[in-house]
Amino acid sequence: MKKLINRVEDIVNEATLGLGLAHPDLLRVQLEPRYIARKEPKEKVALISGGGSGHEPLHGGYVGMGMLDAACPGEIFTSPVPEQMVAAAKDVHRGRGVLFIVKNYTGDVMNFDLAKELLEAEGIAVRSVLVADDVAVENSLYTAGRRGVGGTVFVEKIAGAAAERGGSLEEVQRIAEKVSQNVRSMGMALTSCTVPAKGSPTFELGEDEMELGIGIHGEPGRIRRKLEPADRIVEELAIPVIEDLGLKRGEEVIVMTNGMGGTPLIELYLVHRKLAELLQERGLQIARTLVGNYITSLEMQGFSITLLRADRELLELWDAPVHTPGLRWGV
Amino acid sequence: MKKLINRVEDIVNEATLGLGLAHPDLLRVQLEPRYIARKEPKEKVALISGGGSGHEPLHGGYVGMGMLDAACPGEIFTSPVPEQMVAAAKDVHRGRGVLFIVKNYTGDVMNFDLAKELLEAEGIAVRSVLVADDVAVENSLYTAGRRGVGGTVFVEKIAGAAAERGGSLEEVQRIAEKVSQNVRSMGMALTSCTVPAKGSPTFELGEDEMELGIGIHGEPGRIRRKLEPADRIVEELAIPVIEDLGLKRGEEVIVMTNGMGGTPLIELYLVHRKLAELLQERGLQIARTLVGNYITSLEMQGFSITLLRADRELLELWDAPVHTPGLRWGV
Repeated sequence: MKKLINRVEDIVNEATLGLGLAHPDLLRVQLEPRYIARKEPKEKVALISGGGSGHEPLHGGYVGMGMLDAACPGEIFTSPVPEQMVAAAKDVHRGRGVLFIVKNYTGDVMNFDLAKELLEAEGIAVRSVLVADDVAVENSLYTAGRRGVGGTVFVEKIAGAAAERGGSLEEVQRIAEKVSQNVRSMGMALTSCTVPAKGSPTFELGEDEMELGIGIHGEPGRIRRKLEPADRIVEELAIPVIEDLGLKRGEEVIVMTNGMGGTPLIELYLVHRKLAELLQERGLQIARTLVGNYITSLEMQGFSITLLRADRELLELWDAPVHTPGLRWGV
Repeated sequence: MKKLINRVEDIVNEATLGLGLAHPDLLRVQLEPRYIARKEPKEKVALISGGGSGHEPLHGGYVGMGMLDAACPGEIFTSPVPEQMVAAAKDVHRGRGVLFIVKNYTGDVMNFDLAKELLEAEGIAVRSVLVADDVAVENSLYTAGRRGVGGTVFVEKIAGAAAERGGSLEEVQRIAEKVSQNVRSMGMALTSCTVPAKGSPTFELGEDEMELGIGIHGEPGRIRRKLEPADRIVEELAIPVIEDLGLKRGEEVIVMTNGMGGTPLIELYLVHRKLAELLQERGLQIARTLVGNYITSLEMQGFSITLLRADRELLELWDAPVHTPGLRWGV
């Protein structure tokens, strides 16, 4: 296992401290229990997310103006515990209620639910939105129902903008659910990743193999087969996403071509060329684009495609200013 | 060789097209000869850079408002040819002169020099600034003198801001040279990278080995040895950089903790924690910070540290608005 680490048990805490040291103007970090909070919480609905570490910049990198108020990083590929969400919520809520954004994994769902109960017992209003955008498989190793993947970035950005402009808890929840219902993703891997606590690759792929429909923890996908040209792989990811969303000629989409952590940017742009051409050929309008590492799986090589069906309301919220370590514009 | 590509000979063109498709509001791309230009060139000194591909987002990802006017990507790890720089310069110059930003590699220096002669023969004023910030080795596989690495990002950002605010060719050149003289870097690798045209790794590292002082093309560094804890590696990179710059207690620095392309962000933040602590212990003021993939070596795993001695003039230019695919703030 070749990694830039000290002791395995200190990885997440040390990276959390590093994130705070890199962005002292935006963030505060706490280690006991561990959460990352917006430096100066505002009088608004508080947005909180979290999940296993190893997917950076998700979620800690999306804390800041116009996005999350706090993020709770678990150990690598391990759900955060309710204590983290409770402490984070008490820190950042300002009486306008709390919205949890939860990726659909059994442990995350259970622990956010527990945190919700504990907070409600103290009189804090909490709502929760589930992200389950991965079209690859219906059930998975850690999931009943679809997995939550790249669509989470879209939910956090757009619901974050709705909260920032002063929306009520009901309104911010409505927007978050609208995004969640209109976003779909699918990913693939060229290589596995190694969870430090285990020390060996999560799965094995032959020198000429790839896996389509892989999860962000290396969970099994749809099919493992011989490596193909990039353009063919893009078709195999994009078409199921387009069909599952039922996108029709003339509709607008926000597009994310996302690297899994170990993929060089030159390959992501090469892949994005084909995706953009394919969308245009099908008469879809590319309204906005992200290309880069937005939700990763440690050092895994591969990529995912996320499409959001966009309308005027969602585009306006997408374009609203955001200032976080991972996404920034308009400020 | 596992890569997201179609034909090896099409990689750079397809990635260039993808960059253009991802940023139609910012960029125009040309393939014959190949360059990336700012969509709407301004009445200002034209900044042009370029070099081998495989270091993305450098340089094409730094074209846009407040940074480069054009970038000329060569084949992977291969210098661009003079024809590219000549075509790019003719496209974007607006009578205020052209500044070339050149990383110190023999092929790049030669080809930018030839382009300069050709443009001057047509009456276009061209100046050139050399970046040679890598403290690891004095001469190298492709270089007489030090190699140009991470400092290039700082030269492009700060000289770009000087040009954007309307500085003369002499003024923009002065600023670029001031940055170049006050910036130093050093990097390391956990793994090699594979140049697609060759198809096998550029060098071999044992399962428990790393190389300190590596170049961005995998050129030999200072020393190859057993993998150490991240904190120790940070010291081994940072101290030569600090000493070479002659940084003294109380001075301000702009810091970049840069990934080589295949390093997960969680490791970069972990590493950055130690770097920030080390700088603070030595009484240095961290004025601004970048953590991420800014100058890469395909899928190489590893990182580099870049420090710029900052004063009020450089900080003001650093903070000026920038809008490119790779760096964006203030807009």
